Amino acid sequence: MASKPWGGRFDAGTDRRVEEFTESISFDQRLFRHDILGSQAHARMLAHVGLLTDDERDQIVRGLSEIQTEIEEGRFPFVLEREDVHMHIESALTEKLGDVGRKLHTGRSRNDQVSTDVKLWTRDAIDRLVIGLVHLQRSFVQAAERHRDVILPGYTHMQRAQPILAPHYFLAYVEKLERDRTRLLDARKRLNVLPLGAAALAGTSIPIDRAFTARELGFDGVAANSLDVSSDRDFAIESVFTLTLIAEHLAGWAEEWILWSTQEFGFLALPDAICTGSSIMPQKKNPDVLELIRGRSARVVGALTTLLVLIKGLPLAYNRDLQEDKQPLFDAFDTVEACVALAAVVVDGARLRADRIAERIDEGFLDATTFMEYLILKGIPQRTAHEVIGRLVGLCERRGLKRLADLTDAELAEAHPKLDAEARGVLGVEQSIKAFKSYGSTAPDEVAKQLEGWKARLEV
Amino acid sequence: MASKPWGGRFDAGTDRRVEEFTESISFDQRLFRHDILGSQAHARMLAHVGLLTDDERDQIVRGLSEIQTEIEEGRFPFVLEREDVHMHIESALTEKLGDVGRKLHTGRSRNDQVSTDVKLWTRDAIDRLVIGLVHLQRSFVQAAERHRDVILPGYTHMQRAQPILAPHYFLAYVEKLERDRTRLLDARKRLNVLPLGAAALAGTSIPIDRAFTARELGFDGVAANSLDVSSDRDFAIESVFTLTLIAEHLAGWAEEWILWSTQEFGFLALPDAICTGSSIMPQKKNPDVLELIRGRSARVVGALTTLLVLIKGLPLAYNRDLQEDKQPLFDAFDTVEACVALAAVVVDGARLRADRIAERIDEGFLDATTFMEYLILKGIPQRTAHEVIGRLVGLCERRGLKRLADLTDAELAEAHPKLDAEARGVLGVEQSIKAFKSYGSTAPDEVAKQLEGWKARLEV
Amino acid sequence: MASKPWGGRFDAGTDRRVEEFTESISFDQRLFRHDILGSQAHARMLAHVGLLTDDERDQIVRGLSEIQTEIEEGRFPFVLEREDVHMHIESALTEKLGDVGRKLHTGRSRNDQVSTDVKLWTRDAIDRLVIGLVHLQRSFVQAAERHRDVILPGYTHMQRAQPILAPHYFLAYVEKLERDRTRLLDARKRLNVLPLGAAALAGTSIPIDRAFTARELGFDGVAANSLDVSSDRDFAIESVFTLTLIAEHLAGWAEEWILWSTQEFGFLALPDAICTGSSIMPQKKNPDVLELIRGRSARVVGALTTLLVLIKGLPLAYNRDLQEDKQPLFDAFDTVEACVALAAVVVDGARLRADRIAERIDEGFLDATTFMEYLILKGIPQRTAHEVIGRLVGLCERRGLKRLADLTDAELAEAHPKLDAEARGVLGVEQSIKAFKSYGSTAPDEVAKQLEGWKARLEV
Amino acid sequence: MASKPWGGRFDAGTDRRVEEFTESISFDQRLFRHDILGSQAHARMLAHVGLLTDDERDQIVRGLSEIQTEIEEGRFPFVLEREDVHMHIESALTEKLGDVGRKLHTGRSRNDQVSTDVKLWTRDAIDRLVIGLVHLQRSFVQAAERHRDVILPGYTHMQRAQPILAPHYFLAYVEKLERDRTRLLDARKRLNVLPLGAAALAGTSIPIDRAFTARELGFDGVAANSLDVSSDRDFAIESVFTLTLIAEHLAGWAEEWILWSTQEFGFLALPDAICTGSSIMPQKKNPDVLELIRGRSARVVGALTTLLVLIKGLPLAYNRDLQEDKQPLFDAFDTVEACVALAAVVVDGARLRADRIAERIDEGFLDATTFMEYLILKGIPQRTAHEVIGRLVGLCERRGLKRLADLTDAELAEAHPKLDAEARGVLGVEQSIKAFKSYGSTAPDEVAKQLEGWKARLEV
Repeated sequence: MASKPWGGRFDAGTDRRVEEFTESISFDQRLFRHDILGSQAHARMLAHVGLLTDDERDQIVRGLSEIQTEIEEGRFPFVLEREDVHMHIESALTEKLGDVGRKLHTGRSRNDQVSTDVKLWTRDAIDRLVIGLVHLQRSFVQAAERHRDVILPGYTHMQRAQPILAPHYFLAYVEKLERDRTRLLDARKRLNVLPLGAAALAGTSIPIDRAFTARELGFDGVAANSLDVSSDRDFAIESVFTLTLIAEHLAGWAEEWILWSTQEFGFLALPDAICTGSSIMPQKKNPDVLELIRGRSARVVGALTTLLVLIKGLPLAYNRDLQEDKQPLFDAFDTVEACVALAAVVVDGARLRADRIAERIDEGFLDATTFMEYLILKGIPQRTAHEVIGRLVGLCERRGLKRLADLTDAELAEAHPKLDAEARGVLGVEQSIKAFKSYGSTAPDEVAKQLEGWKARLEV
Repeated sequence: MASKPWGGRFDAGTDRRVEEFTESISFDQRLFRHDILGSQAHARMLAHVGLLTDDERDQIVRGLSEIQTEIEEGRFPFVLEREDVHMHIESALTEKLGDVGRKLHTGRSRNDQVSTDVKLWTRDAIDRLVIGLVHLQRSFVQAAERHRDVILPGYTHMQRAQPILAPHYFLAYVEKLERDRTRLLDARKRLNVLPLGAAALAGTSIPIDRAFTARELGFDGVAANSLDVSSDRDFAIESVFTLTLIAEHLAGWAEEWILWSTQEFGFLALPDAICTGSSIMPQKKNPDVLELIRGRSARVVGALTTLLVLIKGLPLAYNRDLQEDKQPLFDAFDTVEACVALAAVVVDGARLRADRIAERIDEGFLDATTFMEYLILKGIPQRTAHEVIGRLVGLCERRGLKRLADLTDAELAEAHPKLDAEARGVLGVEQSIKAFKSYGSTAPDEVAKQLEGWKARLEV
Repeated sequence: MASKPWGGRFDAGTDRRVEEFTESISFDQRLFRHDILGSQAHARMLAHVGLLTDDERDQIVRGLSEIQTEIEEGRFPFVLEREDVHMHIESALTEKLGDVGRKLHTGRSRNDQVSTDVKLWTRDAIDRLVIGLVHLQRSFVQAAERHRDVILPGYTHMQRAQPILAPHYFLAYVEKLERDRTRLLDARKRLNVLPLGAAALAGTSIPIDRAFTARELGFDGVAANSLDVSSDRDFAIESVFTLTLIAEHLAGWAEEWILWSTQEFGFLALPDAICTGSSIMPQKKNPDVLELIRGRSARVVGALTTLLVLIKGLPLAYNRDLQEDKQPLFDAFDTVEACVALAAVVVDGARLRADRIAERIDEGFLDATTFMEYLILKGIPQRTAHEVIGRLVGLCERRGLKRLADLTDAELAEAHPKLDAEARGVLGVEQSIKAFKSYGSTAPDEVAKQLEGWKARLEV
Repeated sequence: MASKPWGGRFDAGTDRRVEEFTESISFDQRLFRHDILGSQAHARMLAHVGLLTDDERDQIVRGLSEIQTEIEEGRFPFVLEREDVHMHIESALTEKLGDVGRKLHTGRSRNDQVSTDVKLWTRDAIDRLVIGLVHLQRSFVQAAERHRDVILPGYTHMQRAQPILAPHYFLAYVEKLERDRTRLLDARKRLNVLPLGAAALAGTSIPIDRAFTARELGFDGVAANSLDVSSDRDFAIESVFTLTLIAEHLAGWAEEWILWSTQEFGFLALPDAICTGSSIMPQKKNPDVLELIRGRSARVVGALTTLLVLIKGLPLAYNRDLQEDKQPLFDAFDTVEACVALAAVVVDGARLRADRIAERIDEGFLDATTFMEYLILKGIPQRTAHEVIGRLVGLCERRGLKRLADLTDAELAEAHPKLDAEARGVLGVEQSIKAFKSYGSTAPDEVAKQLEGWKARLEV
């Protein structure tokens, strides 16, 4: 039984089926770098407070670095019996160093060690993702720049609503991603508090210096209540939640571009390199990357659900259920990182088909609202103006006219005396766009200002 | 571009990042047996209708069997560029057979091929799980048999409520698992309809014989609408839902046994072989298997959520998002199969600590309800009887008496004249248990009949 | 304290905030009919076994009917203190009948009473919904009939794939709804087992006749284990799951029709009566009903999640958490019933815009696959044929030709010698459709047979 | 058709079933105060930029205030046809003021109006909840103060682990709630950006001053992209997510206290005023409030799921699906507000049963870890020390000794020579507690410092 780090009080060995059921080494081995980083900092702290000699510390730090190299080079043997990455590394260290290795686990428990490792991993993952988001924001900004003069139909209810400038459209996603970025940073801020030293649940009688370890590992502070630490998975759940919103933003965008890639819309040209074909239908060119980005939002929501169900109704402090936090956490980050990266590939490669868009831009009476607003600015109450223009649209439809501009002067004047020649000046999508004024609107000046602002902020 | 089965119309190759993002071979390779099974049946059908010669059929069937052996023996090379298990196998076949291999994909598409593979896989998984459930039911029945005479406190609101016979307790889980089993079988029934031959979405102009293929593969019928087939993942979702209820039943039971294993309850002895210890606390013996069974219910709920989010708002017919159905499906079955198997290990290994239970069985006034019912049977209206006994319980508590039987005759008589010497005959948990009468109750005769019934049904 | 049915042992009254927090009368009052139905059956049973006189039974049955009328007519006072609908009705009965009323709660508990009420309610809701589904299936069949000759583009990946007959399309939803219907009926079968008589958790010492009650209430059987009953919410969860798939099917369909209603697709005309406009954009006509059907799938998935989280980790038997089962159950049924009903309104009112569809039916090379299959039927291996046609599509695109038929004879022959004049016979969507052969395909004969079959089954 | 604000272009009226299906007045009427607040600010802004006269502005502001009073006093008629609270209020205003009322909807749309209303509502709800959380933190701090000297068994895996001071325990929840509070404030910060003026989706040609409106309504900034605004529900989802973690923290705590209230644990006394009884079992006293707090976590998770499913795959900009955001948002806040308030009632009313806890505090070898750490401080490697103490625990169990202190000096010395008389100084829970040293541990001094710190911060 001595092979288990906890075998002292046990009479019988562990059932093999139980070992298979309880192991985590198959998925937590990817934590090895962070485990070693944490253990090296812990060893330095133990030496700092006199619980290790400088020589013991150096042996441990060096031994751990060797183990890291062995793992990185694929020379490290992983075996089921050693349960998890933490026991693997510690056992290997003890094999190397004997009693010096046996001292490493002083003043800590696997509970706080795992928390520390997972926090370090998550912090790195957040940092990588923040860079990925900025990269994707830049792609959207460059697309805005590339399509500066394209006028798109804007939609509500997936019905044509008002004309919008393409840069205005692309910047909408830059805004969404910016909220996502700040959400990640807020999660990082709350996460960045050292759990190590909480030990199993109550702290320790060993005179450790947690502030020292925190500094070594770049934590902003030290967790103040060991029971809280031992039971806490807030940081994992908050991080994954943050990922769900990123995934949702990408899913909505992907849906839109899948639509735009249909023969019916025809707004978008995607390069062959990001499409695939069909095994049976020779003519197919499918926007698979977009579909998978849309679909993978589901697994991120699933990961969040897993975590929320997992912790439901667990009393203090650590419960073994919490081992199950890692797979959804890893999977959510892997998924979102890949989706963000591929989204940038798609945005960089796609081109709006300006001709196709322009061909049908007159459909859908996109100028109706600015036409109504013209009346309002002439003093007509909004509700009355709305009624007037609504009737004109009805008239067009009955008469088979595509555009309000196709109505005669007489028809306009009959609808309302203020609808005179000057009024025609806001008809048509170009005029309509130019009429916009409000901050945040699709007015060319406003959009240009926003675009310049983002280019500066993102250093595009 | 010829390396892709759909490369004909493409000018440019696929971006490597896109290949990595869209591949499914890393997780769908476990479908290889079912893919080969389906393809062999398909080849036999093609020969049956004259689209292959008998010799071509035999070459294909034999070639596929060879590939199966290669995969089973680890000699088969999986590469990213071949996307999925289906293309891997078909390409290998064509390498072996040349043009004969190129004929296999006649009258089918990857869409219906994948559906068929996944249905075959799921059907097998259901069949295995049904056996696992029966095995676990038997474990519960044997536990019932082993603890035939133990009286347990029954709980509502986690407060002691009424006495129950241990076999009555164990059989409650047999009932739950029985519902689970019938739910699985209902899902299997709906699943067992052949998709193959729906081709991409519209069927085919090749004169295939789908009924032949269905018979070959053990399907009960043939799906009647190709568009429906191409978009349908009901079978995967219904199966996973069925798993969530199994997981929930096990989670509730695990929670209960974790409680029972606490020092405070002390109802249950778990063998060392299914417990683990602590890296820091030398005295710990933890019920990890039960905690992981409880915790893993979360990932099954997460898998269901993933699937329900995945298909949300997808129009007909196939969309690439659906590729994401496999990982949650596989994971949910793997998880529940393992949990069901380990639950049986735990039930087989655990023993109720009858002495510890008996020591405190008098706490909680477990006989109060039968005492009340005694009064009802003497003609006292239930609400009045409830009030009378409720006051007696209050009296015991104020006087520090643990049991209603500790009250004097005078106190009983004062509470109600019918509470005479005969009434004492239903006091105490043994008497109380014996008083039960209703079908489905904890009455010893009723419980014995149920136990015999289950032993016969489950051949224990 | 006597005002509570359980006040006997309590010294202090309930905190008002606690009453507000724990009440369920605000949402369970809609169970009143089923509660009364269950209580009347219970009273008849009590008389049948001699625990009530015939006169007492008649008083109770009549008293309960009066209370039902009072509630239906809005004359019944609901007050917070009486907690739930069950206590309201029983208290009112006791006010009417005195001690006779106090006898009603003999041999039952609120736990099994609530289960019975909720099962009766759910059974009715299932029965109503089954009718609703059949009604909606009929609407789809009638739409199929109405659009018998329309050829639609079929899609995969939202890209045009193959031509399909409109009836084939409509019948795909009939198939999905048929699976939904059988799932509901399977859930009903498992639900339809009487819980009443399980009492609190252990059964009762009162000699009740549960089979009598089951017959009175139309249950197919009697639940065999009281502990199981007291903790069981499988029936609610399985029912709600069944609803999620209905909601998902409707969401996918709604998405599709929202697409079809866009200016870009223009496939569908929706009557004004099921659309709404915009408060600011005078020209808008939005498919709100479809959007809400799509959106409301979310609340059904949310309800299922609530139930699955709710029961997670609850030990036997009843726990108060289970009170929270009713709102998601009610909401899911209300939502899906309304969506199914409105879906029928939309299907009945909508018309395919055959002209608009026909105008662009030649886009997307919908005939490419049957063209490839022509080659296969001439003996060319599928993979080779796929390559040949794929290249022809590429050629069309480079030359700006919309249709394969626009290629010259020489070009076809050069691609493959078998692509001769006869081959042209499967080009074009009409020819392509006619070429289909397989069971379940869009072949006109096959579709006609399916349509006739459904008309007969659904009595359209 | 003029009765609808958008009826101009419509020929036919709305189907009654459609009106019932699409209405939101039944649940959005609770937004009335925020709608009026927003409209009054909008009117002031319109006057500020000259689009209303001062007199018109005053009429509108006054009229809206009158309507608010009518609603508050229950004198305002709500009717289905007017769809939502916004149309109700605007219509009522127009009835009062005629054309002046018709001017209010200038430069805004229902889309941005609704966003503004919901943001204002959510901001208030967050502010209320932050106060509720502080109130609950104070209750925990006071409980810590009240039970200053109680020693509790601390648990991992629900097995006794190490002794902890009761204040240390209570403060763990103060820490969790503090993270919850900061998460709410981060959500508030991101929410507090004005959407009004985004109009339908593209902004407006009316020269509105959005910064003016933002100041009037206490927003920190103005949303910079109208398309983003029109499609954005991040603020609702992030808020509800924040609520799920609060609900989960309360659910874990409730579970724990339900356990502590069992006869088996017996750690906790709950006042009658927060418990309820049973309709059938006269002796029951159930911790219903705690069970409902635990159970209601499910509906908050359900609400989050609803929102995440709802927005999945929605393209820009507004879609009617988003109407469904309000019920889960409202329900989640209502639920969590009530749970937080009731949790404080429970914490204030509950007492630890110090005698019962002390009676069994020697069970479970709670001092084993500090005993091991004693050895470590004497220079024994941790893994060796763990093994030594683990064997001593095994020895106790075999010999039936409850406490390590019951071992003889000889037995200790035989296990390890350093386990001498001095070593006995850390045996027993009191000594063990006193031995703790690390920051964040259960060491009396550390706990006292934390308690003082929280008393100061929370002004208890």
